[in-house]
Amino acid sequence: MRKVYLDHYAATPVLPEVMGEMLPFMESDFGNPSSIHSWGDKPREALEAARIRVAGLIGAPPEEIIFTSGGTEANNLAVKGISWAARKKGNHVIISSVEHFSVLHAASTLEKFGFEVTRIEVDKHGTINPDSVADAVRDNTVLISVMTANGEIGTIQPINEIARVSAEKKIPFHTDAVAAAGYIPININEIGVDALSLASDMIYGPKGAGALWVRRGIRIMPLFDGGTQEGGRRSGTENVPGLVGMGKAAELASLNMKERVSRLENLRDLLIERLPAAIPHIRLTGHPDNRLPWNASFAVEFIEGEGMLLLLDNTGVAVSSGSACTSRALKGSHVLTACEIPPEIAQGSLLFSFGIDNSVEDVNYVVEVLPPIIERLRQMSPLYDKFVKEGGK
Amino acid sequence: MRKVYLDHYAATPVLPEVMGEMLPFMESDFGNPSSIHSWGDKPREALEAARIRVAGLIGAPPEEIIFTSGGTEANNLAVKGISWAARKKGNHVIISSVEHFSVLHAASTLEKFGFEVTRIEVDKHGTINPDSVADAVRDNTVLISVMTANGEIGTIQPINEIARVSAEKKIPFHTDAVAAAGYIPININEIGVDALSLASDMIYGPKGAGALWVRRGIRIMPLFDGGTQEGGRRSGTENVPGLVGMGKAAELASLNMKERVSRLENLRDLLIERLPAAIPHIRLTGHPDNRLPWNASFAVEFIEGEGMLLLLDNTGVAVSSGSACTSRALKGSHVLTACEIPPEIAQGSLLFSFGIDNSVEDVNYVVEVLPPIIERLRQMSPLYDKFVKEGGK
Repeated sequence: MRKVYLDHYAATPVLPEVMGEMLPFMESDFGNPSSIHSWGDKPREALEAARIRVAGLIGAPPEEIIFTSGGTEANNLAVKGISWAARKKGNHVIISSVEHFSVLHAASTLEKFGFEVTRIEVDKHGTINPDSVADAVRDNTVLISVMTANGEIGTIQPINEIARVSAEKKIPFHTDAVAAAGYIPININEIGVDALSLASDMIYGPKGAGALWVRRGIRIMPLFDGGTQEGGRRSGTENVPGLVGMGKAAELASLNMKERVSRLENLRDLLIERLPAAIPHIRLTGHPDNRLPWNASFAVEFIEGEGMLLLLDNTGVAVSSGSACTSRALKGSHVLTACEIPPEIAQGSLLFSFGIDNSVEDVNYVVEVLPPIIERLRQMSPLYDKFVKEGGK
Repeated sequence: MRKVYLDHYAATPVLPEVMGEMLPFMESDFGNPSSIHSWGDKPREALEAARIRVAGLIGAPPEEIIFTSGGTEANNLAVKGISWAARKKGNHVIISSVEHFSVLHAASTLEKFGFEVTRIEVDKHGTINPDSVADAVRDNTVLISVMTANGEIGTIQPINEIARVSAEKKIPFHTDAVAAAGYIPININEIGVDALSLASDMIYGPKGAGALWVRRGIRIMPLFDGGTQEGGRRSGTENVPGLVGMGKAAELASLNMKERVSRLENLRDLLIERLPAAIPHIRLTGHPDNRLPWNASFAVEFIEGEGMLLLLDNTGVAVSSGSACTSRALKGSHVLTACEIPPEIAQGSLLFSFGIDNSVEDVNYVVEVLPPIIERLRQMSPLYDKFVKEGGK
C-alpha cells in the first residue's frame, strides 16, 4: 500500500544532515557546555553555533535567542514570562482567539494570577484586524501576542500592522511563529516584533528543541529557575544534541526556503484545486490566498472528522483534523469556531500539511482515495440523509 | 595524554544501547504520539513503554509520571506547580539550604508571588535534621522540598524521616532525586514521598529528558499550558527519542544498580583514602559515610578551585568544583557555605564524580598528577604564604 504522510504539522522526520550533526554530541562530545574543562568546549561552541543559525532564520542577534524544549515552552515563556515581569506595570494581555493552545491556555493561566485577557475575534478567514488590536489596548496592557500564521487553517496574520500598533502604544508584541518560520520569510526587524517563538520539529529538526527570541530590553521572568543557563532566562543543562539539530535544521530552512516554498505551494494549490472538484460539499478553511505554503485545510460537510482520518489511515494516508495537540481530544476546533464555521461543519475538518518529500503522486492518491471514503461515511450520516431528503445537493 | 573524565555529575555519555533505541524515533518512526493515524502508534507505544521503565526505577505507577525536559524542569514544576495549585490553602514552603539551584531559586520566585520560604539549615556534613523540618511547619505550609542526596557533597538526606514528618502534618513532600536515582535504591512507597524529580542525563540517557513523579491526588499547576499532553500537566509535543532514551537508561540503571554501585563505591573510597594521604590540608566535604556512591568531594585549603580545574584539564583530567550549573559563575558554593565551611576553604572545592567507565588506573592517575598541581598553586597563593610564615603545617 502506498504510504502518504500529509501531517507535517504534527511531526516532521529529522533530516539525515541534521542527525549527522547531532550524534557526536551524544557520544564522544557529550560534555556539559557549562563545564570549565575541555569536555565542555565542543558542546559550548556547538551550542553557540546553533544559536547563530537559529537566530539567522529570523534575522535576530544570536545573544537574544533563548533555547527551550520546544514551541510550547517558548510560547508559555513568552506569554507568562513577559506578563509576570511586567505585573507591577499592568495586568492586561491581548491575544487572538485563534492562537495555539500554548498561548491561549497560558493566557488563561494568567487570569488565575489576576490578569485580564482580551481575545481578539477574527473574520471568517481567521484573519485579525489590526484595528481591533489597537482598540483593545488599555493603559494597563503589558503584552500583545498574535501568531504569525495559524497552523490549523494556514491563515497568515497581518503582524507587520499589529507590530506598528504595538510600537505606537509601546507594548511588547510577541508572535508565535512556530507554524510559519522556515515557510515564510521572517525578519524581526522588518516586522518590528519584540518576541518570537520557534520549534525545531516544524522544520525537520528533532523534537524537544525550540527557541524564544526576545528583544534586548524586554523583561522576562523565567519559567525555569536554576543554574542560570541561557543568561538566567532558562536554566537547566542545555539539550546540546537537540539544539545542535535545531541549528542545522534552521540553517537548511533558511538556505532552501525558496525551493521548499515553491514545491509546497504547488502541491498545496493542486490539492486545493482538485479536491473540491472531486468532492461535493467541501470547503476550504482559512484564507483563500494569504496562507502558509504547506497548509491545505478543509471542512467536509455532513461528516465527522475522526472517521475520515481512520479510513484515510487504512489507505495509507496520514492527515489530521487540526492541531496534533488536540488530535486525541477531538473537540471542536476553537480556530474553526472563531471563523464562525458552524459546529456541524467544523466537525468534518481535515488538515493536509505538506512536507518537502511529498509529490504530485501523493496529491493524486489523495484525490483518488478520499472521495469514496467520504461517500461511504455520508451514507451513514444522519445529517446527510436529512439534507438529501430535504432536496439538497 | 591519558584522558580521565571524572565529571559525571555535569554530564554522562549516552550508552550505545540507549542510542540504539532512540534513533528509530528520529528517522522512520518520527510521528507525533498524539496522532490518531498509524504514524502515531509506535511513538505512542514507545513513550508509554518508557514511562513504565522510568516509573520502575522508583517503584511508581507509570500513569503518575510526568515527562519533562530535564531535572531543572522537574524541580521547577514540583516546587512552583504544587505551591501555586495550593495557593488558596497557604503560602508557606519549606526547603533545605543545600538544595540544587533549580529548587532554591524556584522557591525564591515563589517569594515574588507572595509566598514565604523557610530554608532549613544543615549540619557540617550537610545533613538535615528532620526535627528542624517538623519545627518549621506552619498552618499555612503547602510544600516541603528536600533533596534525596546532594550532588555537590554527596550527602544522603534522611528523607524517610522527613517523609514521616510530612505525612504526620499532611503536607506534600517533594524530593529532588536527580543526583541519587539509579545510585541508591529508591521506592516511593517505602519512602512515603509525594513527588520526586529525575533527570535522564545523570544515568547515561540523553540530555533534554527528565521526569517528575507526582502521587495521585496531589494537585499541580502546569508550567506549560497547551495541548494537554501528559494528562494536561505538561503540554507540548513529547520529545519521543529523548524520553525513549531515558526509559532505556532507567531500565539499565535499575538492572545494573548493584554492580554499578559496588564499582563506583570502590573507586570513590579509594580516592577518598588516597588523596588525603598524598595532599596535605585537604578535607573531605559532605558526610563521611552516608554519601552517594559516585561522589568524592573535597576542599583543598589555601587554593582557588578554578586553577586546579584548569591545570587538571591540562593533564587530561575533567573534574568540577561543584554543580555544573554554576561552573562558569564560580561563585562560592551555597552548599559548602551551608556546611559552615569558611569561604577561603570552600573556594578550593573539588568534586570528583565517578562514572561506570572509570577504573582504578583513573584514580591512580589523579593521585599522581594532582599533588604537584596543588603544590604549584600553593606556591602562588598569598594565603598559603601567610600560613607557612605563621608556622602552620
